[in-house]
Amino acid sequence: MATATLSKEMLEAHPWPAQIDRDVLARCIDECSACETSCTACADASLAEEDVADMRRCIRLCLDCADVCEATGRLLTRQTEYVAATARAQASSCRELCAACAEECGRHAHHHEHCRICAEECRRCEDACSAVLGAIS
Amino acid sequence: MATATLSKEMLEAHPWPAQIDRDVLARCIDECSACETSCTACADASLAEEDVADMRRCIRLCLDCADVCEATGRLLTRQTEYVAATARAQASSCRELCAACAEECGRHAHHHEHCRICAEECRRCEDACSAVLGAIS
Amino acid sequence: MATATLSKEMLEAHPWPAQIDRDVLARCIDECSACETSCTACADASLAEEDVADMRRCIRLCLDCADVCEATGRLLTRQTEYVAATARAQASSCRELCAACAEECGRHAHHHEHCRICAEECRRCEDACSAVLGAIS
Amino acid sequence: MATATLSKEMLEAHPWPAQIDRDVLARCIDECSACETSCTACADASLAEEDVADMRRCIRLCLDCADVCEATGRLLTRQTEYVAATARAQASSCRELCAACAEECGRHAHHHEHCRICAEECRRCEDACSAVLGAIS
Repeated sequence: MATATLSKEMLEAHPWPAQIDRDVLARCIDECSACETSCTACADASLAEEDVADMRRCIRLCLDCADVCEATGRLLTRQTEYVAATARAQASSCRELCAACAEECGRHAHHHEHCRICAEECRRCEDACSAVLGAIS
Repeated sequence: MATATLSKEMLEAHPWPAQIDRDVLARCIDECSACETSCTACADASLAEEDVADMRRCIRLCLDCADVCEATGRLLTRQTEYVAATARAQASSCRELCAACAEECGRHAHHHEHCRICAEECRRCEDACSAVLGAIS
Repeated sequence: MATATLSKEMLEAHPWPAQIDRDVLARCIDECSACETSCTACADASLAEEDVADMRRCIRLCLDCADVCEATGRLLTRQTEYVAATARAQASSCRELCAACAEECGRHAHHHEHCRICAEECRRCEDACSAVLGAIS
Repeated sequence: MATATLSKEMLEAHPWPAQIDRDVLARCIDECSACETSCTACADASLAEEDVADMRRCIRLCLDCADVCEATGRLLTRQTEYVAATARAQASSCRELCAACAEECGRHAHHHEHCRICAEECRRCEDACSAVLGAIS
């Protein structure tokens, strides 16, 4: 079962009216989950590579990005007593992290397949954060 | 894009040979992500319900289950220097949490749709943990 | 043993030179840990209160704040391949969350001791984030 | 301010009677926080070392241990609708992770100070988990 459907279903099962468009929200929650998984896996695969010494920046940014995506996904999942200012602050930070991680993974995309996949996922999550930021204000 | 595909792709992009069947592993990683989202959303929706005082046990177990699924999903995603004993311990704990959370959410399934959906997701994650435990030994 | 000493010791044991003052950094890492614990406990205690229906906003913000403090503490702990822009974005978001949570917990401080303690901890963490932001630029 | 005092204060401010001795619980919550910080820092410092290729197992176990300590600390912090079976399962897994991480960090203690400190912290957390397990049954 796709997470996309599950998060959308769960948002719609909430007893209170929505404060942000639920399609925009569900997409960002799903990308945060996917990006957390992708970054956790990319950090781990990079650690196993022979050129691990050249992968330090990639590993560090992937670990950061996984942690930030996780917090962001949880915060955006909550609809009870929604606060716009805090959602905006965290989605902004997540967009920043995803952009930085996408850029670094992109540098290794030609020789490490996990970096290529991860860079693409980071870009999707960055876009989803931008969409949420557009829907908040 | 389904997370399922992404986690499987990432596991296969790892430079080292697999220690556990990657289909079994990818399924569990995806269910841990889905269950974390589902439990975070169910705790939040339950908090907004009029009968919130009757939902305390559900909220508490959902919060616990989200935290445990998150740690388990990350640990199972890592393939570098795999250690069977720690994977087994954490997958066992996750199975226990998912079972307890599924049981409690199930009690509220007839009057709260988010509990019905969450109970089903917890059962899927419990099954996926069982499959991992079967693949480890 | 105080966490403060441990995080400072660990920062100093890192093989690379510091990019941010380590006292400022260690204080913020420790406050993020303390604030995560405080907010997790306050959400849980509020859930057990008889006036739980009036505590929804407090519970929600405490859960958010715990998640954001956790991500921020981890990100600031990492010194390998430090990136100023991402540290700044996440510390800013954490300051915002701590301020919002402190304000809400403060409203319940006179009748719930856990809210009084948690509001104070959130203010300390907010201050520590401000100090980090001052040290970054 | 020591986290120890804060977590104990917060546990005592909970409106319901304790199910487990609060000194034992507070100690374990504090060690889980400290161990999460220590393991996050040790993984990061190990990544920066010249012999990073020999530190892969240490990095991987530190990342796992940080994630598991985080989930365990949160679960043990919650006193509302306490469930003994799930607390036991997660504290057992945490003890297993801390023991494995302590052993691996211990192997590098003579040449990396961060590993020496981290191994000691993992042992303290392992002991604190054992104490909780003794208090549960």
